[in-house]
Amino acid sequence: MLCDHMTPGPRVTERVSLLDAAGRLLARDVVSPIDLPGFARSTMDGYAVRAADTFGATDALPALLAIAGEVHMGEAAQMDLLRHSCIRVATGAMIPAGADAVVMVELTERLDDTTIAVLRPVAPGENVVAADEDVACGDVLLRGGRLLREHDIAALGAIGVPEVEVAVGPRVGIISTGDELVGVDEIPAPGRVRDMNSYALYAAASLAGARPEILGIVGDDCDNLAQALRDGLSHVDMLIVSGGSSIGTRDFARQAIDGLGKPGVLVHGVAIKPGKPTIIAVADGVPVFGLPGHPVSCLTIFRLLVEPAIARWMGCELARRELSARIGANVAGAAGREEYVSVRIARRDGETWADPIFSKSALISGLVRADGVVRIPVETEGVQKGDTVTVLTWR
Amino acid sequence: MLCDHMTPGPRVTERVSLLDAAGRLLARDVVSPIDLPGFARSTMDGYAVRAADTFGATDALPALLAIAGEVHMGEAAQMDLLRHSCIRVATGAMIPAGADAVVMVELTERLDDTTIAVLRPVAPGENVVAADEDVACGDVLLRGGRLLREHDIAALGAIGVPEVEVAVGPRVGIISTGDELVGVDEIPAPGRVRDMNSYALYAAASLAGARPEILGIVGDDCDNLAQALRDGLSHVDMLIVSGGSSIGTRDFARQAIDGLGKPGVLVHGVAIKPGKPTIIAVADGVPVFGLPGHPVSCLTIFRLLVEPAIARWMGCELARRELSARIGANVAGAAGREEYVSVRIARRDGETWADPIFSKSALISGLVRADGVVRIPVETEGVQKGDTVTVLTWR
Repeated sequence: MLCDHMTPGPRVTERVSLLDAAGRLLARDVVSPIDLPGFARSTMDGYAVRAADTFGATDALPALLAIAGEVHMGEAAQMDLLRHSCIRVATGAMIPAGADAVVMVELTERLDDTTIAVLRPVAPGENVVAADEDVACGDVLLRGGRLLREHDIAALGAIGVPEVEVAVGPRVGIISTGDELVGVDEIPAPGRVRDMNSYALYAAASLAGARPEILGIVGDDCDNLAQALRDGLSHVDMLIVSGGSSIGTRDFARQAIDGLGKPGVLVHGVAIKPGKPTIIAVADGVPVFGLPGHPVSCLTIFRLLVEPAIARWMGCELARRELSARIGANVAGAAGREEYVSVRIARRDGETWADPIFSKSALISGLVRADGVVRIPVETEGVQKGDTVTVLTWR
Repeated sequence: MLCDHMTPGPRVTERVSLLDAAGRLLARDVVSPIDLPGFARSTMDGYAVRAADTFGATDALPALLAIAGEVHMGEAAQMDLLRHSCIRVATGAMIPAGADAVVMVELTERLDDTTIAVLRPVAPGENVVAADEDVACGDVLLRGGRLLREHDIAALGAIGVPEVEVAVGPRVGIISTGDELVGVDEIPAPGRVRDMNSYALYAAASLAGARPEILGIVGDDCDNLAQALRDGLSHVDMLIVSGGSSIGTRDFARQAIDGLGKPGVLVHGVAIKPGKPTIIAVADGVPVFGLPGHPVSCLTIFRLLVEPAIARWMGCELARRELSARIGANVAGAAGREEYVSVRIARRDGETWADPIFSKSALISGLVRADGVVRIPVETEGVQKGDTVTVLTWR
């Protein structure tokens, strides 16, 4: 639904050296400018031969071939292979013209300095990679939207691409609301708490590839919040407000967000526990998220809704960070809502277990203990200890 | 074995702002300097009460309490709570002295402006977090060696820690050997190939948190390799040489590595396929790895042996990047060797499948298609389609 308001594909890109590209998101398809390996190449230590010369060879009646020379690694094979002769090659060496297969050295016997006996036949193409067999010129080697791993960097190096175009993340403005909040660098008076959500969201957005910016704390005041949102909107690609969105006496976040631009609030309230009071809005093309104030809820909703929006803004599908595990305790479902329960991952009896973290005060201590959350689907009545569940892992 | 030659704990650390700490490795334990939440706090919207005043309350015979005021979010609770009275509090608000529990608003009835009826009893401590119940001053909040996630950044923000000490990765020198190699930025002559391994290892080392440096290509010459290794050794914390280590005619990497320093080569040849010719050495305290020249083998051995050494150098255990899957085809084991088969991950029928990538030429094209490798244990005779296996994932 939010995605209807977002065009696919990366908005901003930059060119980086291949050495700086690992972990970045490839912006466009990369087409190979060359054939690979570029020459016919042996995949074994052995002898390059004409396959037809070996047909019918056995231990009792081997095919005798004249050793016409050797191609060393890195050398061009200069000679043509004549009939009933062979050329010594190492794994990776170039195959001479005329040869169409390689006999493994283990299936030959060296009779003297100039002759080998081939004990088994080889088929044409056996133990050889043709010049364009690995990658052909014009093939799409990598698709845009891919997160570049070391393997991809290796492949880009092999085709001689020195730099690539990668996606740049959206600028994400972060606002916290609440009269009780003080800055992380302040000492809170009794009744007040430090604004941990700004830092949590800054970290989460950074790790998701975005360029976050902390826009500060706004007290519980609709006009002030509206002003802070408008200021942010002028220079970011996405806005996140945490706190102030519970459906209660101080429900002004919705009002402030709705007045920002068109179409305004798309969703207020999601069937997710924790996270019910979540707001999803678009203001003149800029996605705006109202997230719950509770840090666990805030980060769960970030993971479920904001991270995919960041990925889409950058032109990719979100990488799955999920694993299957058996749940370590019974968990009752939340009637009519999808529930996410914080869990700790443990290995027991050769299996992966997700042990729910139950604690009324599990705010800070629970945050650091949790390895992820388990989704309890809305259609079930909870899960029983030992059931297989899916864990969304935090990193 | 290698670890016997490496002292545990981070070798080099730096202090960074909390905003730059996500994804970094915490170098030392962090002890909380304060209690959290720091004041008794409500976990519900409702009324702060003396629990004893509610004992025995029912719908038929509710406990009547006088509303003595309200504590707003962020306010210090100034008053003491008298017997048979209550104070209105929102979730997260401070509980006044004298109160020891909170009654949910849903379990009360407002009779008039000054009185509520409590319909259910609450126990002492119910719906309240005590001042030091979440984190107590002096508690170890986070252990050194931990990779910092957004949750940890949130927790560090909550206790008012503005910067943290994080581990700095080792300098890793990377050398490629082989007469057939040309630089990635060169056009290879027939028979020659680009040095993709230097780039692959640079990327893999970066992603593992190290500070890699490409030291160049050395031809198949023992003296030149020995000189390049000595040069590298003077300014790196770890050395990687790829290629030149197969047990064959050109086995000079072992010789060059062994002459570098004490104790020299610890292992030459591992019971792993692919990767058999791997060399593990220590030269005067610096780990030196000789990796296979084939990129898939090279990166598999990097993952299995070098990445854990980098993690240990930085003072942490390696993060698991493993998942369980069902294997998509039969795979025969390698007699007497642990085998690693490249696979692609797919979801089918609600399950995770690891489909082996079979292709004789799967060098570059296979590299980019693989999502990871599946370990075929040495004690088995391979795996059957549908068996559950462990996938080491590439990122």
